[in-house]
Amino acid sequence: MALWFEESASPAHRLKWKITQQLFSGKSRYQHIQVLDTEQFGPSLVLDGIMQTTSGDEFIYHEMLALVPLTAHPHPETVLIIGGGDGGLAREVLKYPAVKQVTLVEIDRMVVEVSRRYLPTHTVALDDPRLTLVEEDGSLFLDNASEGQFDVILVDSTDPEGNGPGTVLYTPEFHNKLYRALKPDGIYVQQTGAPFYNPEVVSMVTEDVIKKFSLCRVYWCTVPTYPGALFTFTAGSKKYDPIHPVQDVAWETRWYTRKVHEMSFTLPPYVAHLLPKPIQDAQS
Amino acid sequence: MALWFEESASPAHRLKWKITQQLFSGKSRYQHIQVLDTEQFGPSLVLDGIMQTTSGDEFIYHEMLALVPLTAHPHPETVLIIGGGDGGLAREVLKYPAVKQVTLVEIDRMVVEVSRRYLPTHTVALDDPRLTLVEEDGSLFLDNASEGQFDVILVDSTDPEGNGPGTVLYTPEFHNKLYRALKPDGIYVQQTGAPFYNPEVVSMVTEDVIKKFSLCRVYWCTVPTYPGALFTFTAGSKKYDPIHPVQDVAWETRWYTRKVHEMSFTLPPYVAHLLPKPIQDAQS
Repeated sequence: MALWFEESASPAHRLKWKITQQLFSGKSRYQHIQVLDTEQFGPSLVLDGIMQTTSGDEFIYHEMLALVPLTAHPHPETVLIIGGGDGGLAREVLKYPAVKQVTLVEIDRMVVEVSRRYLPTHTVALDDPRLTLVEEDGSLFLDNASEGQFDVILVDSTDPEGNGPGTVLYTPEFHNKLYRALKPDGIYVQQTGAPFYNPEVVSMVTEDVIKKFSLCRVYWCTVPTYPGALFTFTAGSKKYDPIHPVQDVAWETRWYTRKVHEMSFTLPPYVAHLLPKPIQDAQS
Repeated sequence: MALWFEESASPAHRLKWKITQQLFSGKSRYQHIQVLDTEQFGPSLVLDGIMQTTSGDEFIYHEMLALVPLTAHPHPETVLIIGGGDGGLAREVLKYPAVKQVTLVEIDRMVVEVSRRYLPTHTVALDDPRLTLVEEDGSLFLDNASEGQFDVILVDSTDPEGNGPGTVLYTPEFHNKLYRALKPDGIYVQQTGAPFYNPEVVSMVTEDVIKKFSLCRVYWCTVPTYPGALFTFTAGSKKYDPIHPVQDVAWETRWYTRKVHEMSFTLPPYVAHLLPKPIQDAQS
């Protein structure tokens, strides 16, 4: 009998993925963790019943979350990743020659352990000597970070749903901490979901970020396993405009290119209308 | 008890949509036709078990299929639509002031009748005096069309699956007929599906179109109800480059803008690699 994993994309939309086997299932202090070997996209990480990252299509999300801010910054030497315990984002960041230090702050040690074991293409860079792994709540970590410590901060988290560990990472208090920990020319990015299903996430985050940062921008990609078609990232920048790459990427990528970078800031009207006026004007 | 409609996006991926009621179910000479009232996207047309068009997200597909070729042509006066019996594409085409005559050739009369009744936001323009509705096989219609009759031809069909009515519309023979029916500066576009699930469709169509037309281009959008994230259109043009709009759209749109038009031809490497070299070079 075929096994299927079913997830709720919205109260009225569900996705089902055929799986060859469940590679892992366990409960950490924070969440239910599963690794499913999907027929379509290979080994895939599921947290609290929601597909987070698959081996087959993760390149889209990870290339876009890493390479847009890194190429927009002229010297992204110190990078903080909050979340991202699966390792895929760190892998992309560590490909970037300018990067000297990466701090990966993952609240849930079990996510890292399970990913090392079952998601080998995600975790290839977790032993890079430039990487420091910290097991801590991202918000508490920022309380103790030095002011102006990082060139780039990337928030790679679950969605802000209920009491999940991602929720705190979408609050004004958290953005204050992010701002403080960034250098005077720093850039931060976080995923803000699919506006078709959760328009309030990108609206709420941009309303806050635009008050704090010199520049607030929204860019997007589309990922087969993320429902809602158009999937957004929100960037806050103190100096450089994230729309314009100032460095080229010299290695082979599968989604990101300089042209894809630039086009990803072009917002269809139905998305632009959800955002503060200055973003609409700059990106429509 | 909640009702759910389930569709097979690929052998290993299924989508489920919650429905409030089935508005229509019937068998025509060509296919099984259903209209389901979905909770997420309103009344939706299903043909042979595959979601074709929903009231809530059809604007993306129809704006992009209509407005990209129309704005790239300096005087798109005569337009042929093959398929598109739901009326949504004709509605977008008829908004375009330059358009003088639209011929809509739908093989299945029941699709038109059912859409008129249950998809009123799709069919608002079906009684426009510039529109001629023809109940005929698109390929046979082209056999009897005059040479060089149309400025723009749009193929709005089901996917090329098995013996479905869409399959013939993806063959070299059909492209020959299209070519003949277009004026010496005509443009044609057809949907070529999601490369994540059906990479062979866009590969096959572009391999053929590039041999026949001066220019072959691929552009894309992303639609929540079309699985596979990135959804492609293939354009064949005898003279004008579809990448460059030469006219502006003066009314309110929800997806299409001049900038969205231009960016939609930027192909991520994983898609570009599926296409003939000249397209890769022009669009990467």
